[in-house]
Amino acid sequence: MNTPLVFNTIPLEEIAVGMSVSYSQTITDTDIKAFAGISGDRNPVHLDEIYAEHSRYKKRIAHGLMTASFFSALFGTKLPGEGCVYVSQSLNFKRPVYIGDTVSATVEVTKVDISKKRVFFKTICKVKNKIVTDGVAELFVP
Amino acid sequence: MNTPLVFNTIPLEEIAVGMSVSYSQTITDTDIKAFAGISGDRNPVHLDEIYAEHSRYKKRIAHGLMTASFFSALFGTKLPGEGCVYVSQSLNFKRPVYIGDTVSATVEVTKVDISKKRVFFKTICKVKNKIVTDGVAELFVP
Repeated sequence: MNTPLVFNTIPLEEIAVGMSVSYSQTITDTDIKAFAGISGDRNPVHLDEIYAEHSRYKKRIAHGLMTASFFSALFGTKLPGEGCVYVSQSLNFKRPVYIGDTVSATVEVTKVDISKKRVFFKTICKVKNKIVTDGVAELFVP
Repeated sequence: MNTPLVFNTIPLEEIAVGMSVSYSQTITDTDIKAFAGISGDRNPVHLDEIYAEHSRYKKRIAHGLMTASFFSALFGTKLPGEGCVYVSQSLNFKRPVYIGDTVSATVEVTKVDISKKRVFFKTICKVKNKIVTDGVAELFVP
Protein backbone atom coordinates (compact mmCIF):
# COMPACT_ATOMS: atom_id res chain seq x y z
CA MET A 1 0.00 0.00 0.00
CA ASN A 2 1.21 3.48 -0.84
CA THR A 3 0.61 5.37 2.36
CA PRO A 4 2.40 8.69 2.74
CA LEU A 5 4.61 9.30 5.72
CA VAL A 6 3.17 11.66 8.28
CA PHE A 7 5.23 14.84 8.70
CA ASN A 8 5.22 17.35 11.47
CA THR A 9 2.50 19.97 11.04
CA ILE A 10 1.07 22.44 13.52
CA PRO A 11 -2.76 22.52 13.37
CA LEU A 12 -4.22 25.92 12.52
CA GLU A 13 -5.95 26.11 15.90
CA GLU A 14 -2.59 25.88 17.68
CA ILE A 15 -0.96 28.69 15.69
CA ALA A 16 -0.87 31.95 17.67
CA VAL A 17 0.33 35.50 17.08
CA GLY A 18 3.97 35.85 18.13
CA MET A 19 5.00 32.25 17.34
CA SER A 20 8.18 32.20 15.30
CA VAL A 21 10.68 29.77 13.79
CA SER A 22 14.15 30.31 12.34
CA TYR A 23 16.55 28.72 9.90
CA SER A 24 20.18 29.51 9.10
CA GLN A 25 22.34 28.64 6.12
CA THR A 26 25.79 29.76 4.98
CA ILE A 27 25.84 30.98 1.38
CA THR A 28 28.48 29.29 -0.76
CA ASP A 29 29.61 29.42 -4.37
CA THR A 30 27.76 26.13 -4.90
CA ASP A 31 24.45 27.78 -3.98
CA ILE A 32 25.05 30.69 -6.34
CA LYS A 33 26.04 28.48 -9.30
CA ALA A 34 23.05 26.22 -8.74
CA PHE A 35 20.66 29.16 -8.40
CA ALA A 36 22.03 30.72 -11.61
CA GLY A 37 21.27 27.46 -13.40
CA ILE A 38 17.75 27.10 -12.02
CA SER A 39 16.74 30.73 -12.46
CA GLY A 40 18.62 31.57 -15.64
CA ASP A 41 19.89 34.66 -13.77
CA ARG A 42 23.49 34.84 -14.96
CA ASN A 43 23.97 38.50 -13.98
CA PRO A 44 27.79 38.81 -13.75
CA VAL A 45 27.55 40.42 -10.30
CA HIS A 46 26.73 36.89 -9.08
CA LEU A 47 29.20 34.91 -11.21
CA ASP A 48 32.15 37.03 -12.36
CA GLU A 49 34.74 38.02 -9.72
CA ILE A 50 36.40 40.62 -11.95
CA TYR A 51 33.11 42.24 -12.91
CA ALA A 52 32.02 42.23 -9.26
CA GLU A 53 35.26 43.94 -8.14
CA HIS A 54 34.32 46.87 -10.38
CA SER A 55 30.70 46.94 -9.18
CA ARG A 56 29.21 48.86 -6.25
CA TYR A 57 29.46 45.64 -4.17
CA LYS A 58 33.22 44.93 -4.72
CA LYS A 59 32.61 41.18 -4.37
CA ARG A 60 30.19 38.65 -5.87
CA ILE A 61 26.77 38.70 -4.20
CA ALA A 62 24.01 36.11 -3.84
CA HIS A 63 20.75 36.36 -5.79
CA GLY A 64 18.18 38.22 -3.67
CA LEU A 65 15.56 35.53 -4.11
CA MET A 66 17.95 32.92 -2.71
CA THR A 67 17.70 34.39 0.77
CA ALA A 68 13.93 34.69 0.34
CA SER A 69 13.75 30.98 -0.36
CA PHE A 70 14.58 30.33 3.30
CA PHE A 71 11.14 31.73 4.20
CA SER A 72 9.65 29.07 1.95
CA ALA A 73 11.68 26.43 3.81
CA LEU A 74 10.31 27.60 7.16
CA PHE A 75 6.69 27.68 5.94
CA GLY A 76 6.88 24.34 4.17
CA THR A 77 8.68 22.40 6.88
CA LYS A 78 8.21 24.11 10.26
CA LEU A 79 5.36 26.62 10.62
CA PRO A 80 2.62 26.06 9.47
CA GLY A 81 4.46 22.97 8.09
CA GLU A 82 3.72 20.67 5.16
CA GLY A 83 0.32 20.94 3.56
CA CYS A 84 0.23 24.73 3.75
CA VAL A 85 -0.26 26.75 0.58
CA TYR A 86 1.91 29.79 -0.15
CA VAL A 87 -0.52 32.61 -1.08
CA SER A 88 1.74 35.65 -1.24
CA GLN A 89 5.11 37.06 -0.25
CA SER A 90 6.49 40.58 -0.39
CA LEU A 91 10.24 41.14 -0.36
CA ASN A 92 12.40 44.20 0.29
CA PHE A 93 16.05 43.71 -0.55
CA LYS A 94 17.92 45.92 1.94
CA ARG A 95 21.57 44.83 1.82
CA PRO A 96 23.73 42.53 -0.33
CA VAL A 97 24.58 38.99 0.82
CA TYR A 98 28.12 37.78 0.08
CA ILE A 99 29.63 34.33 -0.29
CA GLY A 100 30.48 33.08 3.20
CA ASP A 101 27.70 35.05 4.89
CA THR A 102 25.48 33.04 7.20
CA VAL A 103 21.87 34.07 6.67
CA SER A 104 19.35 33.68 9.49
CA ALA A 105 15.73 33.66 8.36
CA THR A 106 12.88 34.15 10.82
CA VAL A 107 9.14 34.09 10.22
CA GLU A 108 6.78 35.32 12.95
CA VAL A 109 2.99 35.04 13.06
CA THR A 110 1.29 38.46 13.02
CA LYS A 111 -2.35 37.41 12.48
CA VAL A 112 -4.45 34.23 12.29
CA ASP A 113 -7.79 34.18 10.47
CA ILE A 114 -9.39 30.87 11.51
CA SER A 115 -12.53 31.32 9.36
CA LYS A 116 -10.53 31.90 6.17
CA LYS A 117 -7.78 29.46 7.25
CA ARG A 118 -5.12 32.10 6.69
CA VAL A 119 -1.96 32.83 8.68
CA PHE A 120 -0.03 36.08 8.18
CA PHE A 121 3.67 36.45 8.91
CA LYS A 122 6.41 39.02 9.02
CA THR A 123 9.54 37.59 7.42
CA ILE A 124 13.13 38.70 8.04
CA CYS A 125 16.57 37.54 6.87
CA LYS A 126 19.59 38.84 8.77
CA VAL A 127 23.36 38.62 8.37
CA LYS A 128 25.43 39.53 11.44
CA ASN A 129 22.26 40.89 13.04
CA LYS A 130 21.53 43.34 10.19
CA ILE A 131 18.42 42.93 8.03
CA VAL A 132 19.25 41.93 4.46
CA THR A 133 15.72 41.03 3.30
CA ASP A 134 12.31 41.56 4.90
CA GLY A 135 8.66 41.43 3.96
CA VAL A 136 5.32 39.85 4.81
CA ALA A 137 3.67 36.59 3.77
CA GLU A 138 0.24 34.98 3.72
CA LEU A 139 -0.30 31.21 4.00
CA PHE A 140 -3.44 29.12 3.55
CA VAL A 141 -3.71 26.14 5.89
CA PRO A 142 -6.25 23.65 4.47
CA MET B 1 44.87 44.29 -16.54
CA ASN B 2 41.64 43.07 -15.02
CA THR B 3 39.03 44.87 -17.07
CA PRO B 4 35.49 43.54 -16.79
CA LEU B 5 33.62 42.52 -19.92
CA VAL B 6 30.91 44.92 -20.97
CA PHE B 7 27.45 43.38 -20.88
CA ASN B 8 24.29 44.53 -22.51
CA THR B 9 22.48 47.15 -20.46
CA ILE B 10 19.71 49.53 -21.40
CA PRO B 11 20.41 53.08 -20.12
CA LEU B 12 17.74 54.44 -17.79
CA GLU B 13 16.89 57.23 -20.24
CA GLU B 14 15.96 54.66 -22.89
CA ILE B 15 13.60 52.69 -20.64
CA ALA B 16 9.95 53.53 -21.34
CA VAL B 17 6.56 52.50 -19.97
CA GLY B 18 5.26 49.46 -21.86
CA MET B 19 8.66 47.95 -22.67
CA SER B 20 8.70 44.26 -21.80
CA VAL B 21 10.96 41.21 -22.00
CA SER B 22 10.22 37.51 -21.54
CA TYR B 23 11.99 34.29 -20.60
CA SER B 24 10.80 30.68 -20.68
CA GLN B 25 12.09 27.58 -18.93
CA THR B 26 10.75 24.06 -18.55
CA ILE B 27 10.63 22.88 -14.93
CA THR B 28 12.37 19.55 -14.34
CA ASP B 29 13.09 17.28 -11.40
CA THR B 30 16.67 18.57 -11.50
CA ASP B 31 15.47 22.12 -10.80
CA ILE B 32 13.32 21.00 -7.89
CA LYS B 33 16.06 18.89 -6.27
CA ALA B 34 18.59 21.71 -6.67
CA PHE B 35 16.16 24.29 -5.28
CA ALA B 36 15.40 22.04 -2.28
CA GLY B 37 19.13 21.89 -1.57
CA ILE B 38 19.70 25.63 -1.89
CA SER B 39 16.62 26.72 0.03
CA GLY B 40 16.40 23.97 2.62
CA ASP B 41 12.73 23.64 1.61
CA ARG B 42 12.23 19.87 1.71
CA ASN B 43 8.43 20.04 1.91
CA PRO B 44 7.36 16.58 0.67
CA VAL B 45 4.89 18.08 -1.79
CA HIS B 46 8.00 18.99 -3.84
CA LEU B 47 10.03 15.79 -3.33
CA ASP B 48 7.81 12.82 -2.44
CA GLU B 49 5.63 11.35 -5.23
CA ILE B 50 3.53 9.26 -2.85
CA TYR B 51 2.92 12.13 -0.48
CA ALA B 52 2.06 14.40 -3.42
CA GLU B 53 -0.47 11.89 -4.80
CA HIS B 54 -2.40 12.24 -1.54
CA SER B 55 -2.14 16.04 -1.54
CA ARG B 56 -4.51 18.60 -3.07
CA TYR B 57 -2.16 18.79 -6.08
CA LYS B 58 -2.04 15.02 -6.92
CA LYS B 59 1.50 15.41 -8.31
CA ARG B 60 4.76 16.96 -7.13
CA ILE B 61 4.87 20.74 -7.60
CA ALA B 62 7.71 23.24 -8.00
CA HIS B 63 8.64 25.65 -5.22
CA GLY B 64 6.76 28.94 -5.74
CA LEU B 65 9.90 31.03 -5.47
CA MET B 66 11.49 29.06 -8.31
CA THR B 67 9.14 30.60 -10.85
CA ALA B 68 9.68 34.01 -9.25
CA SER B 69 13.40 33.63 -9.84
CA PHE B 70 12.78 34.04 -13.58
CA PHE B 71 11.85 37.68 -12.90
CA SER B 72 15.28 38.12 -11.34
CA ALA B 73 16.83 36.62 -14.49
CA LEU B 74 15.01 39.14 -16.69
CA PHE B 75 15.96 42.11 -14.52
CA GLY B 76 19.59 41.07 -14.12
CA THR B 77 20.26 40.13 -17.72
CA LYS B 78 17.77 41.86 -20.03
CA LEU B 79 15.83 44.85 -18.65
CA PRO B 80 17.21 47.01 -17.05
CA GLY B 81 20.16 44.55 -17.37
CA GLU B 82 23.33 44.07 -15.31
CA GLY B 83 24.17 46.74 -12.79
CA CYS B 84 20.58 47.20 -11.65
CA VAL B 85 19.70 46.75 -7.99
CA TYR B 86 16.66 44.71 -6.94
CA VAL B 87 14.75 46.91 -4.45
CA SER B 88 11.52 44.99 -3.93
CA GLN B 89 9.28 42.27 -5.35
CA SER B 90 5.75 41.21 -4.43
CA LEU B 91 4.52 37.75 -5.38
CA ASN B 92 1.07 36.20 -5.54
CA PHE B 93 1.08 32.44 -6.04
CA LYS B 94 -2.06 31.70 -8.07
CA ARG B 95 -1.68 28.16 -9.41
CA PRO B 96 0.70 25.23 -8.91
CA VAL B 97 3.52 24.53 -11.37
CA TYR B 98 4.22 20.85 -12.15
CA ILE B 99 7.29 19.03 -13.43
CA GLY B 100 7.28 19.32 -17.22
CA ASP B 101 5.45 22.66 -17.25
CA THR B 102 7.08 25.36 -19.34
CA VAL B 103 6.93 28.65 -17.45
CA SER B 104 6.95 31.93 -19.38
CA ALA B 105 7.96 34.94 -17.31
CA THR B 106 7.32 38.49 -18.51
CA VAL B 107 8.24 41.79 -16.89
CA GLU B 108 6.75 45.03 -18.21
CA VAL B 109 7.69 48.60 -17.30
CA THR B 110 4.81 50.46 -15.61
CA LYS B 111 6.63 53.60 -14.42
CA VAL B 112 10.05 55.24 -14.72
CA ASP B 113 11.26 57.77 -12.12
CA ILE B 114 14.35 59.35 -13.69
CA SER B 115 15.15 61.61 -10.71
CA LYS B 116 15.16 58.70 -8.24
CA LYS B 117 16.63 56.29 -10.84
CA ARG B 118 13.81 53.82 -10.22
CA VAL B 119 11.96 51.57 -12.68
CA PHE B 120 8.70 49.86 -11.72
CA PHE B 121 7.44 46.66 -13.32
CA LYS B 122 4.49 44.33 -13.35
CA THR B 123 5.71 40.75 -13.31
CA ILE B 124 3.81 37.69 -14.55
CA CYS B 125 4.60 33.97 -14.90
CA LYS B 126 2.27 31.88 -17.05
CA VAL B 127 1.89 28.19 -17.87
CA LYS B 128 -0.23 27.37 -20.92
CA ASN B 129 -1.40 30.99 -20.96
CA LYS B 130 -2.71 30.90 -17.37
CA ILE B 131 -1.14 33.06 -14.67
CA VAL B 132 0.69 30.99 -12.05
CA THR B 133 2.54 33.85 -10.29
CA ASP B 134 2.20 37.62 -10.53
CA GLY B 135 3.28 40.72 -8.68
CA VAL B 136 5.15 44.00 -8.99
CA ALA B 137 8.81 44.94 -8.68
CA GLU B 138 10.99 48.01 -8.16
CA LEU B 139 14.52 48.30 -9.54
CA PHE B 140 17.21 50.92 -8.92
CA VAL B 141 19.37 51.73 -11.95
CA PRO B 142 22.58 53.44 -10.76
